[in-house]
Amino acid sequence: MKTVFSPVELKHAPKNEISDGQLRPAVETPSRAEIVLKTVRDRGLGEIIEPLDFGVQPLQRVHAPDYLAFMEGFWDRWLAEGRTAQEAFPYVWPVRTLRADPAPEHIDGLLGRYSMDAGTPVGPFTFEAAKASANAALTAAQLVKDGGESSAFALCRPPGHHCGKDFFGGYCFLNNAAIAAQWLLDQGAHRIAILDVDYHHGNGTQAIFYDRPDVLFLSLHADPRHEYPHFLGHEDETGEKAGTGFTRNWPLPLGTGWETYSEALEEACRWLHVYKPDYLLVSLGMDCYREDPISKFLFNSGDFTSLGQRLKRLGLPTIFLMEGGYAVDALGTNCVNVLEGFETA
Amino acid sequence: MKTVFSPVELKHAPKNEISDGQLRPAVETPSRAEIVLKTVRDRGLGEIIEPLDFGVQPLQRVHAPDYLAFMEGFWDRWLAEGRTAQEAFPYVWPVRTLRADPAPEHIDGLLGRYSMDAGTPVGPFTFEAAKASANAALTAAQLVKDGGESSAFALCRPPGHHCGKDFFGGYCFLNNAAIAAQWLLDQGAHRIAILDVDYHHGNGTQAIFYDRPDVLFLSLHADPRHEYPHFLGHEDETGEKAGTGFTRNWPLPLGTGWETYSEALEEACRWLHVYKPDYLLVSLGMDCYREDPISKFLFNSGDFTSLGQRLKRLGLPTIFLMEGGYAVDALGTNCVNVLEGFETA
Repeated sequence: MKTVFSPVELKHAPKNEISDGQLRPAVETPSRAEIVLKTVRDRGLGEIIEPLDFGVQPLQRVHAPDYLAFMEGFWDRWLAEGRTAQEAFPYVWPVRTLRADPAPEHIDGLLGRYSMDAGTPVGPFTFEAAKASANAALTAAQLVKDGGESSAFALCRPPGHHCGKDFFGGYCFLNNAAIAAQWLLDQGAHRIAILDVDYHHGNGTQAIFYDRPDVLFLSLHADPRHEYPHFLGHEDETGEKAGTGFTRNWPLPLGTGWETYSEALEEACRWLHVYKPDYLLVSLGMDCYREDPISKFLFNSGDFTSLGQRLKRLGLPTIFLMEGGYAVDALGTNCVNVLEGFETA
Repeated sequence: MKTVFSPVELKHAPKNEISDGQLRPAVETPSRAEIVLKTVRDRGLGEIIEPLDFGVQPLQRVHAPDYLAFMEGFWDRWLAEGRTAQEAFPYVWPVRTLRADPAPEHIDGLLGRYSMDAGTPVGPFTFEAAKASANAALTAAQLVKDGGESSAFALCRPPGHHCGKDFFGGYCFLNNAAIAAQWLLDQGAHRIAILDVDYHHGNGTQAIFYDRPDVLFLSLHADPRHEYPHFLGHEDETGEKAGTGFTRNWPLPLGTGWETYSEALEEACRWLHVYKPDYLLVSLGMDCYREDPISKFLFNSGDFTSLGQRLKRLGLPTIFLMEGGYAVDALGTNCVNVLEGFETA
């Protein structure tokens, strides 16, 4: 299986995040991509290629123009306003009774207008890295669509699945899976399925396609009542309007291990069999791992192999896109276990 | 004029807040109340009395039961979950496409469910102080209603006007002005006017009464396009349903001084003349002061005297409730200038 990765993805290098009432060292670090890349090489998964530049158009098909303009110009504006902090955090949000529009003109207001949390710092190279990450997703999609590959791995960083149409959050700035899905549809595909196996619910991806039947969104994740993102990913969310029935969530209790997880996965696989997508996109987080520092599922490294093997049996053209996973030492092993499991099943 | 204040208000003593991408020393400190209290004493404004305890019922008339329960039990729960941080900050919010309900069960989710920003830490004595602050507002209202006073000053801290029906934010945890207004209505008043002269828009107060004609909400403040709270306080917000026409906002440009301000104030006073409220509540921030560290209006200390004098000419039973103002050295002077200006006009 080919891996798509750009060193530009490493340029987003956050120092801190806000959690537990404190400014703490960021967990979504460049080292995450580096160890996965090293393991891909060490274990000989396959060729590693750099992404093509698909330009702004595929991003515009998913994200709001004002959001993209904000992200594109953010850092220059931050500096122009005399800010000296090396990374920016939002601090106020348009929750209920407050108005997202008209958008503020002040940069702090804009940061809140276009975000959902305080844990996702924006730095000088954040959007450049996010675009490289999205291009990795698009290039992997193209490898499968046109390149004669039955599967491909987009080593995306920063991740994407928490990012909405017009907001960043959860370490995500562009929704890589949504961008790749929409691109495949625009290239002639009729039905795309996105299976999100990250520990956290992919709230951004779900919201982007919530009213559409051409993208089936399936997510297995920690119950949002107990885990980030807290405000989406409940079982009763099944889509709306023309998309009714095309979203499915399996919120799982903290402490879930492979046995319980794989039962939910079987249900998700049944939906995939019925839907018969032209392509399967896997939002691949490795944070179900038992040693993950911010997560509470109990996967062993071997369970990731089982996950890959199970996905292979679906027999679908498959694009893997990296999302979360913060146990850096094991991240390469766990990620390549999924991909090798898929390859060798 | 009598001042109502409880030393319990000082027990909320935040250390830090999040702004400009950094954890910074909190600006809403106990010293704010202390210097106002000292100046009230030094200048002989009048008797200083402790608030009565009005219990939970007047709070329940304004705030959601689940919000009050959350605030009441928060710190015990924070400790019970093993948290060691000395103050809590939320970090994720239910912005658009996300759901405020069902409320999360996790304490970090709850913090986001019941807040609007990351700049308002919650500590061990926060809610105790907030209740004392609300009792100060209620006691001041009672002094004017039953105590033979034509005016009174509630030295409230923490402030209240950013706090909504079910969320804290902007250093506010209970909406003191809304609680006092509702109490006066429940005691038989027919019409209350709230004039908010804090530099920041009183988004919480506005939202609480937005659909009601029995509370006229008038606010002069820095344009939210350029200032916190960024997402409410625009000129086109004039109420809804039965409350249509009973909200008025004067968003003013950064750099506004007394001359421009007083023109808007004259307009607000005309609305008060037409509305003929039984009581006037003044949400009294002193952050229009030119030396305020987080604000950008240009009041001199003398302008606060002019403000008090102008309000006196309305000839209304008036309850002043302290809101913001962060130039601590001058806060006492500026605050008592308003009150003396009112007394001696």
